[in-house]
Amino acid sequence: MSYELYYWPSIQGRGEFVRLALEDAGADYVDIARQKSGVDKMMKAMARHRVFAPPFLKDGKRVIGQTALILHYLGPKLRLAPKAEAERLRLLQLQLTITDFLVEVHDTHHPIANSLYYEDQKPESQRRAKSFRESRIPKFLGYFETHATLPFSYVSLSLFQVMEGLHYAFPGTMKKLRYKNLARLREKVSERKTLREYLMSPRRIPFNQSGVFRRYPELDG
Amino acid sequence: MSYELYYWPSIQGRGEFVRLALEDAGADYVDIARQKSGVDKMMKAMARHRVFAPPFLKDGKRVIGQTALILHYLGPKLRLAPKAEAERLRLLQLQLTITDFLVEVHDTHHPIANSLYYEDQKPESQRRAKSFRESRIPKFLGYFETHATLPFSYVSLSLFQVMEGLHYAFPGTMKKLRYKNLARLREKVSERKTLREYLMSPRRIPFNQSGVFRRYPELDG
Repeated sequence: MSYELYYWPSIQGRGEFVRLALEDAGADYVDIARQKSGVDKMMKAMARHRVFAPPFLKDGKRVIGQTALILHYLGPKLRLAPKAEAERLRLLQLQLTITDFLVEVHDTHHPIANSLYYEDQKPESQRRAKSFRESRIPKFLGYFETHATLPFSYVSLSLFQVMEGLHYAFPGTMKKLRYKNLARLREKVSERKTLREYLMSPRRIPFNQSGVFRRYPELDG
Repeated sequence: MSYELYYWPSIQGRGEFVRLALEDAGADYVDIARQKSGVDKMMKAMARHRVFAPPFLKDGKRVIGQTALILHYLGPKLRLAPKAEAERLRLLQLQLTITDFLVEVHDTHHPIANSLYYEDQKPESQRRAKSFRESRIPKFLGYFETHATLPFSYVSLSLFQVMEGLHYAFPGTMKKLRYKNLARLREKVSERKTLREYLMSPRRIPFNQSGVFRRYPELDG
């Protein structure tokens, strides 16, 4: 039976971390909300299964929410993580640190409220983005750099996506930074055959101004 | 062998969610950073084991970071979670939603940068807290309310702590809200014998103006 992924149909967002894993593994899955009346189906499934927010995954009767947890669950099934518990927990720990980072990326353009437009929190965004560029990017990427040489796993795919996103959203900032291991990982992942087909296909939604990573030049310093 | 908990010695913060689990279970543990030269020991262990941030737990040779993951790991060992994998993942999913909520609680007083004082981001805090009180508390507590009748687990202890913290930080806001199941859970947890001894002991650090939950009347509306 196919996996069912439930996520917003017009953005990469957090769902993209799951899409990358499913696509790289060549897994059989349906991206439910991108079908006809898909968002409606997603909202109904979310209420029925009492999930807090997309993305969530259905695998038969199992329903799993929270991006990092979905990847932890899929890891061994898609051969994107070893089966040994200790190693699985180490990967999940790293993935949860990526989760923390994504909140901070998102809050560069939404430091006040998710329910407000970016335009209604612009001065605050500029203050927050300054601190993000100067202290948070180095802190997190410095940490990820020391883990970027681990064996290939779903975490590698997620770090690839983080680097893609940062280069999209903060091109000026990223041009000044050197993270050798992360740069190499990004290149190696982009060359994976199945994944590359996905990245070139229309299934890969382009980065845009509604996702987690957004390009506002005034936030790039 | 005792568990070793590594967390800041003067605040409840995220470490308190782990302390509550260890204490309720009557587990044998050492709160490393609260010993002599403890913070120094913590910083060294953090570097040695390449952990991103406190809290982290040492169990013999195992080192585990990320609050929710520590609880997931300890759950079955402390009899605060069943052993069955499906049920464990359901609890972890809930705990990760609590993690998400704690970031939002923290950001009510630090919407711009963790590295700045609250006093240097006061107007932004007031804007963020307004949206937090009006949309985020109802969204998260409404969700937790529907899960507050689940069998006792580490998630119950965490929800207790969330309610304690919100009543400390936002007393005016909380007085106006009614969450029957969460209120009952809070009361039941506070009456657990071993936990109550902890809560009355000097080991329970009082809420203060350095933790995740802080009482700034101007943020309480």
